[in-house]
Amino acid sequence: MTDGKLYNVPVHDGRMVETKGFDAQDGISLQWLSWYNIQTGVISGRLSPALEERARQCKMTYVYQGHIEKIPILEEVLAKAGVKREEVAFIGDDLTDIVVMRRVGLGVAVGNARPEVKQAAHVTTEARGGQGAVREVCELILKAKGIWPEILKKYEV
Amino acid sequence: MTDGKLYNVPVHDGRMVETKGFDAQDGISLQWLSWYNIQTGVISGRLSPALEERARQCKMTYVYQGHIEKIPILEEVLAKAGVKREEVAFIGDDLTDIVVMRRVGLGVAVGNARPEVKQAAHVTTEARGGQGAVREVCELILKAKGIWPEILKKYEV
Amino acid sequence: MTDGKLYNVPVHDGRMVETKGFDAQDGISLQWLSWYNIQTGVISGRLSPALEERARQCKMTYVYQGHIEKIPILEEVLAKAGVKREEVAFIGDDLTDIVVMRRVGLGVAVGNARPEVKQAAHVTTEARGGQGAVREVCELILKAKGIWPEILKKYEV
Amino acid sequence: MTDGKLYNVPVHDGRMVETKGFDAQDGISLQWLSWYNIQTGVISGRLSPALEERARQCKMTYVYQGHIEKIPILEEVLAKAGVKREEVAFIGDDLTDIVVMRRVGLGVAVGNARPEVKQAAHVTTEARGGQGAVREVCELILKAKGIWPEILKKYEV
Repeated sequence: MTDGKLYNVPVHDGRMVETKGFDAQDGISLQWLSWYNIQTGVISGRLSPALEERARQCKMTYVYQGHIEKIPILEEVLAKAGVKREEVAFIGDDLTDIVVMRRVGLGVAVGNARPEVKQAAHVTTEARGGQGAVREVCELILKAKGIWPEILKKYEV
Repeated sequence: MTDGKLYNVPVHDGRMVETKGFDAQDGISLQWLSWYNIQTGVISGRLSPALEERARQCKMTYVYQGHIEKIPILEEVLAKAGVKREEVAFIGDDLTDIVVMRRVGLGVAVGNARPEVKQAAHVTTEARGGQGAVREVCELILKAKGIWPEILKKYEV
Repeated sequence: MTDGKLYNVPVHDGRMVETKGFDAQDGISLQWLSWYNIQTGVISGRLSPALEERARQCKMTYVYQGHIEKIPILEEVLAKAGVKREEVAFIGDDLTDIVVMRRVGLGVAVGNARPEVKQAAHVTTEARGGQGAVREVCELILKAKGIWPEILKKYEV
Repeated sequence: MTDGKLYNVPVHDGRMVETKGFDAQDGISLQWLSWYNIQTGVISGRLSPALEERARQCKMTYVYQGHIEKIPILEEVLAKAGVKREEVAFIGDDLTDIVVMRRVGLGVAVGNARPEVKQAAHVTTEARGGQGAVREVCELILKAKGIWPEILKKYEV
């Protein structure tokens, strides 16, 4: 959801919190998924209140931060959502994402993913992370499910 | 007015607010429009005090935030400004902007607009949003109205 | 000194202040000028405590913010510094900078300056503002004055 | 560790602190080094709590800020770490880094280093600072030490 660039910014009590740049075009497409009950979520190794807030804005259901081991999280999400692994898409950019990508139906590498991640992925997006990669995947899913024409119609495209 | 990248940053009470990067060259051209009573405004689906502040700096007249349905806002602005739809230019980058673009005299897509938006637009700017797109449109308007030579003269160009 | 992108960020009392991205390689070269009593300064149409702080870090002597009319400032700086117009270099990117560029010995446009500014300038830098343009000009001045070899020697180049 | 762009942002008492953009892919590779007792550190001429925080996140051992003379710091780090100069790699982008690069086993210039720095370096990274340069060097070290296959195995690559 970002270009990997992170900024530590001060809060009033002197602590630093992490913020990062999210993409507006990504955000709206995550909301479209939520309209059709396609749940989304994020697993991050770090902790950032900015990501928490962004997930809320994008109507994401699952937000896991500060988790280095991603497989238990995947299992938990599968159980909560009541879906099978094959029904899940996962987008990643670094080695830590590969274990999840190998276990789901659609593993996606962003344009600026490490080469090993691209090799492990089923698809690589044209766009880089934080610059349209999530949008590309959301549209792919909406098109595959035949929902895209409805979205276009709603917006008078 | 931005490249679509948004940052959530903390305020003193722990809440996060959204900030984004605006372009200085865009800003001055919006002020030029205000000198000649050409009113400007912004309609955003999200809420950002940074945009509020930026609109003030750029002497914009209309600032609507947190509005997903853009047509009622367009109607309200037309009524307040006492202008006809054909006299309005609207710049957008995503599907939600198309309904307005289709209803005004000049619909403009920024360089990084989604392909559907470019197709619906009368013109697409060379520059990307937040990197000169607004400037390009402001100069276009000032030139079309024959005001541009006055501006150049004022600055001893 | 920046790429023209500006961010409004909140302070504790709810007000927004403007921040922008400065370049580390630019900063050190401004300090080199100060070592050799070559005074530097900045004139900005807006108000930003971030620029004030940056000017201090870079050992700049003159910081004028919130000034739309730049010629009186130029006159004031010339008087304070006791130098002639021909001895001054000025870097700019937009139309408002042209009046100063036309009155000094060396008018410089940054790589991302508006076309009218490049045409009015004596030189245009390869680098864009905030990405090495100031560094380019500082090195040019240090080389023209024969100081550059001393700098290189100090750093064991 | 950054692209050289620095932002001054306000803290609650009105002071400004410096923040900069760090790269997530860089960060994880610095942590890998720490797993294998390869110590890392940073020497900066400026002061930034954001860098302090970032060093902590990346499990760096040595953080020196506000130091213009880098050789005494190098000596201190060598003594504390109990390693020889030849065993040290140092990444830099500007003239101030050359004195250290000349004294260690592996001097690395980032892709956006000044030309003099590239000339003084043993290697120049493909990636720019803050956009994968540190990652490139960390992988180089892990590969040279034969550790890389272990990392790949851990992540099921």
